[in-house]
Amino acid sequence: MKVSKFGGSSVATASQIKKVLDIVNEDSERRIIVVSAPGKRHDQDTKTTDLLIRLYEKVINNLDYTHKKGEILERFEEIVNELHIDTQIITEIDETLEHLINTLKNQPERLLDALKSSGENFNAQIIAAYNNSIGIKTLYLSPKEAGIIVSNEPGNAQILESSYDKIYELTRYDEKIIIPGFFGYSEEGHIVTFPRGGSDITGAIVARGVKAQLYENFTDVSGIYRANPKIINRPEIISEITYREMRELSYAGFGVFHDEALQPLYHYRIPVVIKNTNRPSDPGTFIVYDRQIDPQKVMTGISCDEGFTSINIKKYLMNREVGFTVKILNILAEHNISFDHMPSGIDNISIIMRSAQIKGKEQKVLEAIRRECEIDELNIEHDLAILMVVGEGMSAAIGTANKVTSALAEANINLKMINQGSSEISMMFGISNADAQKAVKACYQNFYND
Amino acid sequence: MKVSKFGGSSVATASQIKKVLDIVNEDSERRIIVVSAPGKRHDQDTKTTDLLIRLYEKVINNLDYTHKKGEILERFEEIVNELHIDTQIITEIDETLEHLINTLKNQPERLLDALKSSGENFNAQIIAAYNNSIGIKTLYLSPKEAGIIVSNEPGNAQILESSYDKIYELTRYDEKIIIPGFFGYSEEGHIVTFPRGGSDITGAIVARGVKAQLYENFTDVSGIYRANPKIINRPEIISEITYREMRELSYAGFGVFHDEALQPLYHYRIPVVIKNTNRPSDPGTFIVYDRQIDPQKVMTGISCDEGFTSINIKKYLMNREVGFTVKILNILAEHNISFDHMPSGIDNISIIMRSAQIKGKEQKVLEAIRRECEIDELNIEHDLAILMVVGEGMSAAIGTANKVTSALAEANINLKMINQGSSEISMMFGISNADAQKAVKACYQNFYND
Repeated sequence: MKVSKFGGSSVATASQIKKVLDIVNEDSERRIIVVSAPGKRHDQDTKTTDLLIRLYEKVINNLDYTHKKGEILERFEEIVNELHIDTQIITEIDETLEHLINTLKNQPERLLDALKSSGENFNAQIIAAYNNSIGIKTLYLSPKEAGIIVSNEPGNAQILESSYDKIYELTRYDEKIIIPGFFGYSEEGHIVTFPRGGSDITGAIVARGVKAQLYENFTDVSGIYRANPKIINRPEIISEITYREMRELSYAGFGVFHDEALQPLYHYRIPVVIKNTNRPSDPGTFIVYDRQIDPQKVMTGISCDEGFTSINIKKYLMNREVGFTVKILNILAEHNISFDHMPSGIDNISIIMRSAQIKGKEQKVLEAIRRECEIDELNIEHDLAILMVVGEGMSAAIGTANKVTSALAEANINLKMINQGSSEISMMFGISNADAQKAVKACYQNFYND
Repeated sequence: MKVSKFGGSSVATASQIKKVLDIVNEDSERRIIVVSAPGKRHDQDTKTTDLLIRLYEKVINNLDYTHKKGEILERFEEIVNELHIDTQIITEIDETLEHLINTLKNQPERLLDALKSSGENFNAQIIAAYNNSIGIKTLYLSPKEAGIIVSNEPGNAQILESSYDKIYELTRYDEKIIIPGFFGYSEEGHIVTFPRGGSDITGAIVARGVKAQLYENFTDVSGIYRANPKIINRPEIISEITYREMRELSYAGFGVFHDEALQPLYHYRIPVVIKNTNRPSDPGTFIVYDRQIDPQKVMTGISCDEGFTSINIKKYLMNREVGFTVKILNILAEHNISFDHMPSGIDNISIIMRSAQIKGKEQKVLEAIRRECEIDELNIEHDLAILMVVGEGMSAAIGTANKVTSALAEANINLKMINQGSSEISMMFGISNADAQKAVKACYQNFYND
């Protein structure tokens, strides 16, 4: 059994939805389908979910929302008309929106979750209806019916471990099942949305619950590129990548597949494939637990993300003091700051975090370090970018570090930090925000175009 | 005022002692002299301190120690005879040794400290007597008379902060002052020796106490080499190095000047010069607080030390968990393990320490990490060497990392770890013990012989 998830652009229009159902119906293993809300139809278009958020804002500010609601109904009407299914569903959508607005307008967080998830919900119903209309037995299941019961934290749902047994029961159905992505229900019956990458998370949860042989993630690209295609012209597509590599690349800005969505799959080793709805015969990128390493291609991908901050601390004889680093990290934990890297010398240490982690807390944190740690010098550096060079075979291959550092030296880029741990599949380089794109180009050139 | 310290080989024989006093007497600023015990006269020779430790072992095991004591007396007799000073001092040395043995034989730690420090003590008295005999007013002062009052921990004396005011009074003397290195007195009046690098520490303490303009450290080399001369044939001598650079190089095995001795000098910015007793006109190596950087020579030195261990931990989504690293470091602190570096990836972390730190505690520590941290994978790697490439100008110079990594790649050396912090004057590379010498050669070649 496969679980197949289709992203917003794959279900943005009636013709896209037909493509999706062609893909779904041609393979009997494709039994459970998770769908997003209609995405952009063209570059200037607005996603349905964003229209729904605007509707929410009108409501919450007591403004006339008729026009906004009209825009949303129009989007669905266009799809329904082109699919030639019963237009009664538009009336139902209208009534559902009104019902949500009327019952939840005094609970803004609940209303937001309920409205912004309804794009997925309506779309799943429409898609199921259409597939039935062309003669394929298909069942729409709400997340509640599918067993997706989550923690009760608006906008940040976490699946409850107990849900998986319920989800496993989906294997009993003979029909194709269509489930809206992006949200679950709390035990109290509230709609609660997942954090960023929401529909991917639904797909992953269902795939784990039914112990799928494969989780297919359909999107509008034919897989994961080795580097950002906005920086590199037509980069290679990765054919196979491990979960761990994917995590490292996602961390530094690879957006195709949200890394949090990998978590349910990781321990059960359920493979994922990223495929293109518009070119379904392209092989796509497989995300797997383990893979064969090609010694000629030790670098799987390069990514570079901006917006990091480094706190740099110097203290003479630092490494003699058992517990010194703990003191510093306790201060960070007290301020609820999660850091990412901690390169160190004998008498100094740098702690690297996303700038957002320390925003607004900077003075307090620095003061606490000064007060509690008897340091010699302390400074903070913003506008750092983190370049990640990722590959399972890297640590064993002699000269990988050298390939990267020589590419960067030739491009005249100063390395502020380097960090490569012992059991590593990645190397991290700290550079200036300003050098970020240049660095990706230099590395890609050096690894793939020589 | 200068404080001048002479190491064991500089005061090993009468003729060496004459050289030392020529140096001392030719400069009226050289007012306070710290001396070691007579060192080796030739490669096969035994240091006086080692003879004294053997004497201690005979005594403590209730064996006949006459012969051992005889060897010690002979060494001093040879010096006294060649210097033509009163041989009465040999009788006094004999009586002192007997007195220490008789009064302390039931307190082994005290006896060890008292005996092993007496080589310095006798030598200081002999040298002072000789300088007086040639007409230079010279005063032997015991550490107690000089104000060197220390903590009462045998073999690991720490200077008491209150001593420095007393030591400052040494500036009032008109005579040359000779002080034995390596030990102080506890407040209770016990002889207590300093840890490794003992005479260097005495010199540094006195230099700080008298606020010396310069601390001269005379030894048998003309300064500090850029790399280990046992690995590199005739390496360059460093003309100027900062305390911080010196710390990093000492850490990874540079033995000329013990880094703990720098501590009293660091905050008062008292410069040190390492000079050669046998070639006193050679400029030597200055250790200073700050220095001009030559952009052509950003690498000050290379060192490589073996015997490190790395604990490697993997945990999926590690970087999301605020306080995860603190948990691990708390476990290390509970076991009194000080670590040196902590390179990390997104989902893994390596903690590098000297193997001696974890010896005998390995199983307990690993079990505690497994029990308390819900990790995915844990392993431990021994036989690591740490290569340190050190230089104040390095972090600003583009291509330094590349010079090192290309030298290592050409030498076919696998880099297990890399660590360079943001405010860094050094880069650390983790390699196999087996590659240590090859790595130093490759780097030196690349930086200095090209």
